Amino acid sequence: MEEKKEFEEIQETVLELLEEKKYTAARNELLLLNAADIAEVMTEVIDEISLDAAIIAFRMLPKDISVDVFSYMSTEDQVEIINGITDREINYIIDELDFDDKIDVLEELPANLVDKILEKTPRHERKQINTFLNYPENCAGALMTPDYISLRRDMTVRQAMDYIKKVGMDRETIYTCYIKDEGRKLQGIVSLRTLVISDDDMHLSEIIRKDVVSVNVYEDQEEVSEMFQRYGFLAIPVVDNEDRIVGIVTMDDIFEVIEEETTEDIERMAGVVDSTTTEYLDTPVSQQVKSRLPWLFFLMLSYIATGAIISHFEMGLQAVICLVAYMPMLMGTGGNSGSQSATLIIRSIGVGDLDVQDFLRVLWKEFRVSAIIGICLSLFTFFRVFFEQRNDPDHFAIALTVSFAMLLIVVIAKCIGGMLPLLAKKIGIDPALMASPMIASMTDMVSVTTYFTLATIILGI
Amino acid sequence: MEEKKEFEEIQETVLELLEEKKYTAARNELLLLNAADIAEVMTEVIDEISLDAAIIAFRMLPKDISVDVFSYMSTEDQVEIINGITDREINYIIDELDFDDKIDVLEELPANLVDKILEKTPRHERKQINTFLNYPENCAGALMTPDYISLRRDMTVRQAMDYIKKVGMDRETIYTCYIKDEGRKLQGIVSLRTLVISDDDMHLSEIIRKDVVSVNVYEDQEEVSEMFQRYGFLAIPVVDNEDRIVGIVTMDDIFEVIEEETTEDIERMAGVVDSTTTEYLDTPVSQQVKSRLPWLFFLMLSYIATGAIISHFEMGLQAVICLVAYMPMLMGTGGNSGSQSATLIIRSIGVGDLDVQDFLRVLWKEFRVSAIIGICLSLFTFFRVFFEQRNDPDHFAIALTVSFAMLLIVVIAKCIGGMLPLLAKKIGIDPALMASPMIASMTDMVSVTTYFTLATIILGI
Repeated sequence: MEEKKEFEEIQETVLELLEEKKYTAARNELLLLNAADIAEVMTEVIDEISLDAAIIAFRMLPKDISVDVFSYMSTEDQVEIINGITDREINYIIDELDFDDKIDVLEELPANLVDKILEKTPRHERKQINTFLNYPENCAGALMTPDYISLRRDMTVRQAMDYIKKVGMDRETIYTCYIKDEGRKLQGIVSLRTLVISDDDMHLSEIIRKDVVSVNVYEDQEEVSEMFQRYGFLAIPVVDNEDRIVGIVTMDDIFEVIEEETTEDIERMAGVVDSTTTEYLDTPVSQQVKSRLPWLFFLMLSYIATGAIISHFEMGLQAVICLVAYMPMLMGTGGNSGSQSATLIIRSIGVGDLDVQDFLRVLWKEFRVSAIIGICLSLFTFFRVFFEQRNDPDHFAIALTVSFAMLLIVVIAKCIGGMLPLLAKKIGIDPALMASPMIASMTDMVSVTTYFTLATIILGI
Repeated sequence: MEEKKEFEEIQETVLELLEEKKYTAARNELLLLNAADIAEVMTEVIDEISLDAAIIAFRMLPKDISVDVFSYMSTEDQVEIINGITDREINYIIDELDFDDKIDVLEELPANLVDKILEKTPRHERKQINTFLNYPENCAGALMTPDYISLRRDMTVRQAMDYIKKVGMDRETIYTCYIKDEGRKLQGIVSLRTLVISDDDMHLSEIIRKDVVSVNVYEDQEEVSEMFQRYGFLAIPVVDNEDRIVGIVTMDDIFEVIEEETTEDIERMAGVVDSTTTEYLDTPVSQQVKSRLPWLFFLMLSYIATGAIISHFEMGLQAVICLVAYMPMLMGTGGNSGSQSATLIIRSIGVGDLDVQDFLRVLWKEFRVSAIIGICLSLFTFFRVFFEQRNDPDHFAIALTVSFAMLLIVVIAKCIGGMLPLLAKKIGIDPALMASPMIASMTDMVSVTTYFTLATIILGI
């Protein structure tokens, strides 16, 4: 990608110039980029050189560009920049930000700074900001902006277009316009496309679309993101409990939500819980410990049972000690087989392809898949063990024990891996928790039990 | 969410009505929903009742609605519907579909059906379709549509708006318009917002934005999706190797790409490779075996080394057989610790927060985190083992061995888990492959070596 190469070269140059304190030259290089890219360079400057260098470079940008750049930065970087610039500059930036970006920044700032900023905000906006700051994190209310275009149904297309021409500059989007009645209840929408292709003298009541999908202001952000993915809308109106429109969420805010929710899922699948949304390197060690230790500890406890099972077979094991050498392979393959299935099922539930009622179909499919895989792996294992133990008089029985255990373990592990996420969903636990770590600790128990029971039967240990 | 509840009720009713073959009543219920929702009900009908019922219901929809519904269906469902309706209906639907949806459907249909459809298509469009069908899957060319609005820079705003009014109905988006020179080279863009708020008599050359980001037609879809997430654009122009614009990709097509790429990543992290994009229940058993067996087999082989290490300590182990009972706990906790770290790092690389040069910082952080976690877990383990083995004269030495092994294993596993994904990235392997299964098989080797070496030193086995 040509743009990317160019971007990386410019970033390199800017970093070098700032290192040598050649600020003007650095600024001129920066101005070759667009705002989103400048924001990325700024993050690099903070990480690689210093916050001070970033602040100086930031202050040297033309004011209108600096606001844009600011709005593309991560919230942590924004707060750091805010702490490093003057009150006047802060007020300018906060003033110029889009409403939803403004709320995001204010949420992260210390209370005294927020108060200082709000003092200088017009009373009407101050009230609105305070309302928005009170919505819980991760709900539609925290994502929305009040900067939408609202029209009346008795307007003509020409009147509507004139109105949009006048106010369109300041609104988050003008491509979907909202029509409400006197009680602020949402009546329908008109897209700018419809306005543009309709005759100037038509009334909006003739072209209004009434089958509007809206979300409640307290709706979870994951639900909101699913609606965007499902319908492909550019924006979705947000309504309060009385169905009055209070704002809109636009599509560009949803990418971040998707990223956040995916990260949460993936981390949960690896037994990392309640992780913060901050970047890995910015998360303090104590926080990392807190999000990893509990689950590790819980899983460690579950191995007490596995240990007890092994202790039970201790005597026999001592007699045929070579069996111990195959334990890791059997447990490992069991764990891997189970995780494969669990992951496929968890993801299918996540994207809506599978549901609890598919339980039997999943089980049947996992059974067939695991039988084939189990037979392949156990055949190989039989010959391998047979050859390795050829000097042991019991080599046939040992090979039979290990390979038959392999077959059974793969089948059982895959069936457990296929079922557990669906069961979790059924009883209202997040299926993502039924991934590798959980499955592995369960299959380990199954593996040693199967293995040593077979050994008792076949080898008489 | 009210809409959702309503939707589920209607879906339930439709399914019941179709079951009882009350088609007209079912259709009337369906028409209460919007096209995306009807498409979802159709999928349920195919899965739960029969393809025939779905086809009858589909054919009873008004023609214009049926095209919309069709465009929201999964490609598999589309092909099934196509196979069940008459040629005339097929031609009507294909004709009315947006260009990019048309290409998606044609790609999946058998060649003879495609030929039959193309026969009835105007020559100009036929040529264009053939070009599009030749772009490799998963590249920008396969995502794009040629239905964009192109303007000339010498047009006035009024002329541009008149032109958009005329052709706007048929275009994928009218919110970003593209300006090209005589050689079809992309010169810049004008957003509909700019057009609406600009004076009628201005020339486009005065309001054109030239800092346009574009992608090459062969660019991988993952890159394209990253650009959308980075810039928040509604559409990105696609250019050929000579910088001539050949189409645009719109934001709504990107959600599907994100979902596909995330699934690929998550599956790869669980050792499922080259999985297809079809739904779990629709993927044949043979395909499932093919995407799971190779990696399982490879990992099983890696356990030969672990087995060999254990065999090496066989004699000593026979003397202190109770050590075997703690093996699963140590290996399991090592594997879980390593996977937690690996997952966090893989995800951070994936979303662009970490890169190869952060290697030492990651190592240092993992070391501190793992030291704290390791000390907690090993303290608990010491007392547990001390108590459990209290009847063994060596109980202190055994407890010391197991708990010290725990500490070392957690630290080493977390450092391996933190480093491997970055090393993989460095040498050009997908970091996602360095997740749970791979990490677990490596840490298992480390675990048994550490454990039994400590046992030799402390217990003299």
